[in-house]
Parts: sequence; C-alpha cells; structure tokens
Amino acid sequence: MMQKKVFQFSHSSVNYYFDSSFLNLKDITDPKNTIIITDENVYTAHEKKFKPWNSIVLKPGEQFKVQATVDSIIGQLIEMGADRNTVLVGVGGGVISDLAGFIGCIYMRGIQFGFVPTTLLSMVDASIGGKNGIDVGFYKNMIGCIKQPSFILHDLDFLKTLPEKEWQNGFAEIIKHAAIKDAAMFEELEANKLSVYQKKIQSTALLIQRNAILKTKVVQKDEFEQGDRKLLNFGHTLAHALENQYDLTHGEAVAIGMAFAGKISQEYSSFKEADRLIKLIDKYGLPVTAGYNHNKVFDILQSDKKRENDLVNFILLKSIGKAYIEKISLEKLYNLL
Amino acid sequence: MMQKKVFQFSHSSVNYYFDSSFLNLKDITDPKNTIIITDENVYTAHEKKFKPWNSIVLKPGEQFKVQATVDSIIGQLIEMGADRNTVLVGVGGGVISDLAGFIGCIYMRGIQFGFVPTTLLSMVDASIGGKNGIDVGFYKNMIGCIKQPSFILHDLDFLKTLPEKEWQNGFAEIIKHAAIKDAAMFEELEANKLSVYQKKIQSTALLIQRNAILKTKVVQKDEFEQGDRKLLNFGHTLAHALENQYDLTHGEAVAIGMAFAGKISQEYSSFKEADRLIKLIDKYGLPVTAGYNHNKVFDILQSDKKRENDLVNFILLKSIGKAYIEKISLEKLYNLL
Repeated sequence: MMQKKVFQFSHSSVNYYFDSSFLNLKDITDPKNTIIITDENVYTAHEKKFKPWNSIVLKPGEQFKVQATVDSIIGQLIEMGADRNTVLVGVGGGVISDLAGFIGCIYMRGIQFGFVPTTLLSMVDASIGGKNGIDVGFYKNMIGCIKQPSFILHDLDFLKTLPEKEWQNGFAEIIKHAAIKDAAMFEELEANKLSVYQKKIQSTALLIQRNAILKTKVVQKDEFEQGDRKLLNFGHTLAHALENQYDLTHGEAVAIGMAFAGKISQEYSSFKEADRLIKLIDKYGLPVTAGYNHNKVFDILQSDKKRENDLVNFILLKSIGKAYIEKISLEKLYNLL
Repeated sequence: MMQKKVFQFSHSSVNYYFDSSFLNLKDITDPKNTIIITDENVYTAHEKKFKPWNSIVLKPGEQFKVQATVDSIIGQLIEMGADRNTVLVGVGGGVISDLAGFIGCIYMRGIQFGFVPTTLLSMVDASIGGKNGIDVGFYKNMIGCIKQPSFILHDLDFLKTLPEKEWQNGFAEIIKHAAIKDAAMFEELEANKLSVYQKKIQSTALLIQRNAILKTKVVQKDEFEQGDRKLLNFGHTLAHALENQYDLTHGEAVAIGMAFAGKISQEYSSFKEADRLIKLIDKYGLPVTAGYNHNKVFDILQSDKKRENDLVNFILLKSIGKAYIEKISLEKLYNLL
C-alpha cells in the first residue's frame, strides 16, 4: 500500500512514495514540464509506462556513466527546449539516478529532479542521499555533486523484470546496512533467503522501506559526509578499486570488499565474526573473494576520494551492527592486500 | 590598506580581502594543498608571483570556457593527486573564476575554492555571488552551479597590466550597478571619467569595494535568484544573445543591452532617462548600439535561461537607481528587436 513520507535534509526536503505506482508520477510532476531519463533495458521492458512522457533513452551500463553521455543528454535537453521549470526524472538503476541527478545539479545551474529507482540496489541505496557522479577513466564518481532529489517513487512492479544478478546486487547493500547499523536485520537476513524475498514481494516491500529509511537517517545526520555517513562506505573502498578494472557488478565488488573489511576488522578491533559475515554474503549468492592484480588495485586505492594525504579512511566493524572509521596508511594497506 | 570582511551566505561564509596583496595568499591557504588555475596572460605578466604555487595555466579567452577545458583540468588535477583537501584558487578574470568555481563544485563532489580576480570586471562582478558556468555552443553558462567561494582576495597590482578594453568592461558592470541600485554612484560616475580612475588607484579601490559590496548584498538576500538577484541581469538578456555570435566583449554586449533595456523601459514604465543612461555608457568608451541579425539573436533569446515558458524576465528601470522585472512575451520581444 502506498505510503508517502517526507524527509528533511540540510537544504531541502524529499518526498518518498513507498510501494507506489508509476501511474502516480503524473500527480507529482506535470508531464508537460517533465523529461524522463532512462535506459533501453527499462524502456523496452516497460514501454507502455513511458507513453505519456518525454523521454531520453540511454544505452544501459556503467561504461556510459561518463562525460560523453552527459554531453549528449545536455544537447538533447537544449533541443527539447528544457528550461529552469523542467523537472528531470531518472527512471532506472544507479547509473541513471547518478546521471539524472548530476545533470539536475548543473543544467542551467540546477533544475528540479526526482527518481523512480527500478532496481533493488537503487531502491535501497543508489537513489538515496543526493550523491551523484560520473566516472573518469578508472576513477569512480570523480565528478559529481551532492544535491537531494525532490522526490523518490518506488514501483515494485519494476522488480518483476529484474535479473537474478540484480537481486544479488541489491542484497549486497542490504547486508552492508545490516552489518554496520542493524544487528536485528542481519539476523532476519540469516533466517531468510533470496528466493523467499523474490516470491514474497510484500515482505520485500517492507525490507526495502526499512533499508531506504536506514540509509536516509544516516544521510540526514551527516549529509556532507563529515562523519557517520562515511560508514556507508563499508566494503566500498576496495570495491571501487576492483569494480572498474574487473568484470564485476557493483554488488559483487562490494561483497568482496565487505569480506575483506570483515577480515581486517578482526586485526584492528575486537570483531570476531568475519566468518559469520562471509557466510551471509555467500548465502545471497555473492562472491567473498577474487583473484586480482594487487599493484593495479593499489594504484587505484591511492587516488580514492576517501584518501586524506597518506591515510585511507577504512570502515571496519566492532561487532555486527556497529561500524567505525579506522585510518589506515597506504603502506599498511599495501601489505594487507 | 587591506580590509578583511566576512559575508554570510545561505550555506557558508565568504572572506573578502579588499585592497590586499597576492603575497597574503599563503596565509589564507597552504601552498602544499593548493592548486592555482590561471591563464597564460596573467601568468606571463606576473610570473614571479606564481613561483611558490602549483599552477594549471590555461589558454586565455571565453572560447575556452567549455567542457573540453573542464575535462583537461580534471585530468591534470587527478595527475597532480588533488584530493578532498585540495583548495583550488582561480587567479584571473571571469572565465577563470567560472572554471575554477565549477570544478570546485564537481571535483570529488565538491572541494574548497577561492578567487583572486585580476580584472576590474571580475573584482566588481564575476568573482562575486557563487554563480559559475561554462558555455555550450552559443548558449552562455548553460552548465554550472551556484556555490560560494571560501574567499576572494583583491590585489590592485593586477590592474596595472590591464588593457584599456578590460577597464571599459569593468565599467559596464559598475554602470549597471549604479543604474539598478545606486543613484548616488551614478552621479559620481557622471562627474568622473575612466582616465581619472585609471590614474587614482586609491579612489578606484574604494569604487571597487563599493561595487563588490553592492553586488554581495543583493546576492545575500537572494542567493538562488528567486527575486532581487534577477535585477543584476539588467542589460544581460540581450548581451548574452549578442556576445557569443558577434565579436563583442562582455562589457560591450552589456553596454548595448543596457542601452536597449533603457529604451524599452521608457515604453513600459515611467522611466524618462534613457538618454542620460546612454550618455554615461558612451562616456566610458562603451558602445550603445550595434548592427546584428535580429532573427539569429532572437533564436538565442528563445533559449535564454531566464525564459519561463513564453515569457522572458526582462529587467527594466523605473528611474536611475531603481530596477524591476517585467515579463515580456517572446512575440513582443521580437517586435521590439
């Protein structure tokens, strides 16, 4: 059942429409002033939904989350006569919300934008928090802004066409949320399995809402990532270094990153449950280790955005549900790899 | 004599160092963490000043205020190891502050930046207010953000090498400020002339500070341009349409735009002093009319950022020192041209 919630951020508020329908979008934003940004996968699978809307349809995939795509979208917006009253709506996964959000930030110095996340990962993570960005070469999200969308609308109908890999991707971030902030959810995940969530869409709806709100509250307290928001990077420092170099999905890379961070946590803190964490990651069909070129990965780590001079802010666990920031030197990190 | 003033904006405060020296920059930002962005003209004329600083030196000119330059700067920042603690300092005219500010907005989702404006125009206008942007084809500032710099430092030494044209450019914006907000300053300008200001740098210092503060106060009240800030666009709607198509400086284009807006003001309001305005513009060596292709200019006006559906927000005068916003339809505007 549709639920509207309003969350206040530093400079604006965001309307969340949980468990809603794409049909309601026209009550939120006027089709005459709205331009949808989506990708071919989503568009083809749900063509009817897009009928009443002006749409820009992109090629799908992280390799298009780059400046050339931004240039092309801007050209199309100018051609379509988009002005300061235009509302952009990103309908898709994280790549689409990153692109739509970034362009919403910079087109005519900022126009309104909203998201309809169509993947589990995007519903629980990518669409939330106002961070957007594009990649530059191997460097992920090197360019972007932090700006909140005006609204986020969930239509679980989109999950019906979601490939298995994408479900696993979403659960990587759900496991992350549980590991850093919610021991009870961690236990719930241990007691369930992926195929059950895929069948019982209503219990998945609750899990999605719980995760979206968990992330939202972390962001609300620390929108510009001075403290607590950094904890959401659990598993992501290594993940970002792996993801663009090897043929891994974001979820797979995060899964490997979390397993790695779990093991390091045992060296740095009193954490003793790396095996339990690894078991849960594995249960949801995600990898926990990978062969990779350590020097190549280290090169990328060196230019990670979370680096401060020679120290990397690494997120570790004290216990399941409790994370903290450990500053680890590049040298030490090299040895740990 | 150096004067420090702190101005509070919506999300941050900006330190202004009026009538200061470039040598003081090292007390504001640590050279180890700082990267200067400047152009060949400024760099060559003041090479000694740049010795202690890491610098990125660009080709000068508005034609380089485009995405290709942004791409190149980002590549250099990555190579130089710029991270979240890096401070960018734009040393130059409006093109440089636009580029440095935009990149400060988007590099790693935002890093600190400051400005050392080296032209009169930039001191009284371009460096102030947090608007930045790049051009897309004929469309000026189509892409950008609104974000305040951390600091602005004035060193009047830079004005010594300023070409005559650049002085005139600066006075176009000074006349604009007087016309929309400060009748007393308008009279002062009428009583003086350019060559006097060029000789008496100390009275120019006062004029610069007065104009910088005038603009700052307008922006403070309306940072995101919902109301009063729009008045600063006096002369600019036509100017932007002219500037990229014809070989005009920004000041020349604004001068022509102000003369045009002055004449329209007499049709729409009780304004009677178009001739007085035109006389002052002319006195400072600026053009008040130009031959141009009306259809070409109209095409650009149609996609002006200040357009709202079929209406253009045009800034007109009620009297010298008092401006207001008139919504003029595209059709009517076409006839006025």
